[in-house]
Amino acid sequence: MANMTIGIIGAGRIGQLHAEHIINSSSLRLKGICDLEIAHLKDTSIEHNVPMITTNASMLIEDDEIDAIFICSSTDTHCDYIEKCANAGKHIFCEKPISFSLEQTKAALEKVKEAGVKLQIGFNRRFDTHFRKVYHTIQGGQIGKPHIIKITSRDPEPPNEEYIQSSGGMFFDMTIHDFDMIRYLSPSEVKEVSVATANLIDLRFERHDDVDTAIITLTFEDGSIAVIDNSRKAVYGYDQRIEVFGEKGMVTADNERKSNVQVATQDAVKMDQPKYFFLDRYKDAFQQEIQEFSQAVMNQEALTCTGEDGLQAQRLAIATKKAWKEKRPVLLSEI
Amino acid sequence: MANMTIGIIGAGRIGQLHAEHIINSSSLRLKGICDLEIAHLKDTSIEHNVPMITTNASMLIEDDEIDAIFICSSTDTHCDYIEKCANAGKHIFCEKPISFSLEQTKAALEKVKEAGVKLQIGFNRRFDTHFRKVYHTIQGGQIGKPHIIKITSRDPEPPNEEYIQSSGGMFFDMTIHDFDMIRYLSPSEVKEVSVATANLIDLRFERHDDVDTAIITLTFEDGSIAVIDNSRKAVYGYDQRIEVFGEKGMVTADNERKSNVQVATQDAVKMDQPKYFFLDRYKDAFQQEIQEFSQAVMNQEALTCTGEDGLQAQRLAIATKKAWKEKRPVLLSEI
Amino acid sequence: MANMTIGIIGAGRIGQLHAEHIINSSSLRLKGICDLEIAHLKDTSIEHNVPMITTNASMLIEDDEIDAIFICSSTDTHCDYIEKCANAGKHIFCEKPISFSLEQTKAALEKVKEAGVKLQIGFNRRFDTHFRKVYHTIQGGQIGKPHIIKITSRDPEPPNEEYIQSSGGMFFDMTIHDFDMIRYLSPSEVKEVSVATANLIDLRFERHDDVDTAIITLTFEDGSIAVIDNSRKAVYGYDQRIEVFGEKGMVTADNERKSNVQVATQDAVKMDQPKYFFLDRYKDAFQQEIQEFSQAVMNQEALTCTGEDGLQAQRLAIATKKAWKEKRPVLLSEI
Amino acid sequence: MANMTIGIIGAGRIGQLHAEHIINSSSLRLKGICDLEIAHLKDTSIEHNVPMITTNASMLIEDDEIDAIFICSSTDTHCDYIEKCANAGKHIFCEKPISFSLEQTKAALEKVKEAGVKLQIGFNRRFDTHFRKVYHTIQGGQIGKPHIIKITSRDPEPPNEEYIQSSGGMFFDMTIHDFDMIRYLSPSEVKEVSVATANLIDLRFERHDDVDTAIITLTFEDGSIAVIDNSRKAVYGYDQRIEVFGEKGMVTADNERKSNVQVATQDAVKMDQPKYFFLDRYKDAFQQEIQEFSQAVMNQEALTCTGEDGLQAQRLAIATKKAWKEKRPVLLSEI
Repeated sequence: MANMTIGIIGAGRIGQLHAEHIINSSSLRLKGICDLEIAHLKDTSIEHNVPMITTNASMLIEDDEIDAIFICSSTDTHCDYIEKCANAGKHIFCEKPISFSLEQTKAALEKVKEAGVKLQIGFNRRFDTHFRKVYHTIQGGQIGKPHIIKITSRDPEPPNEEYIQSSGGMFFDMTIHDFDMIRYLSPSEVKEVSVATANLIDLRFERHDDVDTAIITLTFEDGSIAVIDNSRKAVYGYDQRIEVFGEKGMVTADNERKSNVQVATQDAVKMDQPKYFFLDRYKDAFQQEIQEFSQAVMNQEALTCTGEDGLQAQRLAIATKKAWKEKRPVLLSEI
Repeated sequence: MANMTIGIIGAGRIGQLHAEHIINSSSLRLKGICDLEIAHLKDTSIEHNVPMITTNASMLIEDDEIDAIFICSSTDTHCDYIEKCANAGKHIFCEKPISFSLEQTKAALEKVKEAGVKLQIGFNRRFDTHFRKVYHTIQGGQIGKPHIIKITSRDPEPPNEEYIQSSGGMFFDMTIHDFDMIRYLSPSEVKEVSVATANLIDLRFERHDDVDTAIITLTFEDGSIAVIDNSRKAVYGYDQRIEVFGEKGMVTADNERKSNVQVATQDAVKMDQPKYFFLDRYKDAFQQEIQEFSQAVMNQEALTCTGEDGLQAQRLAIATKKAWKEKRPVLLSEI
Repeated sequence: MANMTIGIIGAGRIGQLHAEHIINSSSLRLKGICDLEIAHLKDTSIEHNVPMITTNASMLIEDDEIDAIFICSSTDTHCDYIEKCANAGKHIFCEKPISFSLEQTKAALEKVKEAGVKLQIGFNRRFDTHFRKVYHTIQGGQIGKPHIIKITSRDPEPPNEEYIQSSGGMFFDMTIHDFDMIRYLSPSEVKEVSVATANLIDLRFERHDDVDTAIITLTFEDGSIAVIDNSRKAVYGYDQRIEVFGEKGMVTADNERKSNVQVATQDAVKMDQPKYFFLDRYKDAFQQEIQEFSQAVMNQEALTCTGEDGLQAQRLAIATKKAWKEKRPVLLSEI
Repeated sequence: MANMTIGIIGAGRIGQLHAEHIINSSSLRLKGICDLEIAHLKDTSIEHNVPMITTNASMLIEDDEIDAIFICSSTDTHCDYIEKCANAGKHIFCEKPISFSLEQTKAALEKVKEAGVKLQIGFNRRFDTHFRKVYHTIQGGQIGKPHIIKITSRDPEPPNEEYIQSSGGMFFDMTIHDFDMIRYLSPSEVKEVSVATANLIDLRFERHDDVDTAIITLTFEDGSIAVIDNSRKAVYGYDQRIEVFGEKGMVTADNERKSNVQVATQDAVKMDQPKYFFLDRYKDAFQQEIQEFSQAVMNQEALTCTGEDGLQAQRLAIATKKAWKEKRPVLLSEI
């Protein structure tokens, strides 16, 4: 009874996650999945449920039954696949970031535009219940004009060294979600970025010319200000909070905890910790983003999160990296 | 790839809920569903996904492929179906309460025993993340011996009159979950029950010799005490809280809210309300209970919630009704 | 610059507390304090600040400068002192309970009425910021008609044996505050009382024909219900919570914690515990009750908490004790 | 029975606050108060309780009975009074900031050192229960080495124009408390400051070359980072929160609310707002700071908050102002 047929390029952690959600969705069909190495899919539910498992992406891109392609391969392959998919008339869901190069991204977006296909970027947090309610609270005028936007975004533990090396650095890999969230929530675009960074957690970040701790300050065209604090290691769990302070009030989204249970003893009153990491925390958001993508494609509606949003988040990552390297505030107009 | 094949008797609200979860489970297969009236299933995902839709329960009970039957029909049919399923060697998942008559229930449980099939009762709350953590906190000795168990259990709005009429009354329909939770959490069995009742919400309850508000006090064999407060109408949402107070501390489970968002303005700081009703609140628990049922059946393991548990909860409902009618504390040994 | 001169009979824990608050109040003057044994006041701020320290209560009662007497001596002396103060035309603040005998209390209240003096009973919780806000929320109609009133009232640790012996039992000593709070919050008077009790904490209670754990259920004339849960030993601190559930909503007052600090680590998220006991928890309420008493006396205004309130709370304690002893619901009209 | 005799210079809002606390303290005596205009003290408790009310500060500074002087006059007079008090051998409690000029402050501190008198600066927040618990949590090693310190500090409404004009600007008037708190909590000293500012609330700030909104980022010698967000207008009340994130966990201090009452209705669940402003929020801290000052003076103990702390907070304010004006990060070594 599926209404849309999908292929996935890239069967890593995030590719497998989308695969499972598509398999379990009664309105979507996963026809094929492609990965350079497919041995690790043996005996998984993907092997049992997906007709075509291949190392050749063209098999999917050129398949007439497939309506849309999910690009979940490594970042350096994104733009090439976007262009190929666009040329083949496939709608596209591409993981973040689009690329590390503005030129490549712009060229790819141009092809998408020419082909008239849809392109959604994997900023899953826009589809989170809590953050979406923050968005609607602002849109509804309940807190008036935003003055200060604060995002706390901390991972529970650092990734492995291989991941660090190919991640493009914290701003491209981790903060990119926060940059997009800032843009999602603010009525104004960013004008300037400055950053204070630190290497406090793990020598491997420094070794790969990366940081593990940062406070990023962004000023908007309308004069308001945002601040993001990032850490690669919050031992108490995945810390994902938002606070927007405005002329008429403040809206906040607190962490989801593992449970609502409290234990009070002679020593302390203990609550449960935040959910451990993004697979738990954003489980519903990951499902919601593919539902909305397929709805938008099938009903020819506007997307919640477009290629342009991917491009702008990428510009913010580039500006922040520049601010870090040059130890000065960087205007977005420089990028 | 399904490991177990299931049939469902009764396609009302709860039957449809289980049907959807089974359809979406990659390890379970829903072969057939039976209801007296099947017209309302037209154009649903059940019609699209279930091979056999019938008005004849025997079609399912006698189907050789079917391993287990879910009994989701009206309470007065439960025992008959349990016996038939047991005779046919089917494992059984039966909704609560088993019946309104102790004799019927006992006879049915006897047949189950003779047939050597598994019978799980639909006390979904035992499978809730929060309440299960309360259970494990007690089991782990963190609060010592329980002294006082408190359950708040309030529906967001009264059911319709037809439902009230066939529900068996609040104690059989609503409090039965709380009785089971009390037994799940307490290391001791109930000795005596007393109750204070009221009709404050809706004249329809009184008209059908039922109550809409109650405080039920239960004393245990070991001397500890429990108290349940029920209401048929909590305008702020489904109120489901537990508190267990013991010699070394207290463990509580608070409501799940619609979101973790707060809005602070000149007037107030507003939080979101509890989730609206059981379909939202216990969504994960409903999935978990069928997963654990199928695991237990396939692996021949002990069930978390047995026919005996259903019988004991039923005794507590009968005792409470007696305490209400006779305006006195009732010993469980009287039942 | 004091506007009112006060004498205190009884320099125990609560008498000394009031003494300190009066000494520190710029509008009140503490002229004298009386106790059977005054040696323990040596080198205290009372010795340094109170002109008259005596073992003879008549010295205070007959002193022309003294406007009001605080009766903080043992319960069995209250009525005698109330009568003497009334005869001497002194306004009276008397600690709870007024007495253990309804006849004595009624006779004393009669004298107070004849003398035309003011009598306030020491139900300090009526003057607590949080509980008063609960009261005003109900009065303002925000939750509509109350259906269920719940009070959790648990001491952090049992008193010593001497105290237990002379306390009159838990219902007179501890629950009396909850009985008054129930009456303060409810728009209706109590009709019937039932109780489940336990001895789980300390053998000394049983030895003195007392209980240490109880669930008390009260039904009101208007059909609504209240439930109080008491324990003599909450290891996590003084547990003082109120919940009022009504037709249009619910109002709750949570505990005051030692601080608003939380510590999140790999093991847990820890909050601070409730304040340890009544001296901390109700510090402001104790000050407020004497301020309002003195205002009412000086301005000839109505009291927030009268002798009649003391009498009614006492009736509830008697009814509860009877319900416990006779193992049945007791109508308040029996008392 | 007072142990220490005090004089106050300056009877404005803060001078009167200290006066009342000293009057109500049984261990302190307020002998005199000085102000340029004393008419506004007529009929206050100060007039009734303070023997000497004068427009001549020398009357206090030269009074042999007076042990310590509280300097609560306008900032531009602080250093002159500090020097005079020091020369007269008086211990000194001086409100913040010490001055707007580093040279003046240094010269004044030199005199204090020479005279061997004690000097405490009015950073009242160091004496707050919640923040002190944060401090002790860090000191106790529970969160390991701090990585990120976050302070939210927002006033409920802007001051009047006259106040703005003489305040020295937001960084000297308001953020100075946050600068001191940062230093109190961090094990390392600040190395560099940068700031993003905005004028979003009130044109009067801009008119007086001031800002009303700011995000201040501070990096420490040990590599860790702090961020302060300030606003002159939080319509929901005085917002005073701290969060310290470290290698082993996080400690937070949330706002004190007006009450712990919640009201749940069909529309929302409402909590009370933060206390309105500093007089409410830091009431206990104001009392605690003068108690600890007097204890330290009488017992010749070390102060919690010294002239050196005042000097360092002043340097941070100067650096932040410079960072604002020059639109670049400023090294503290430049100041």
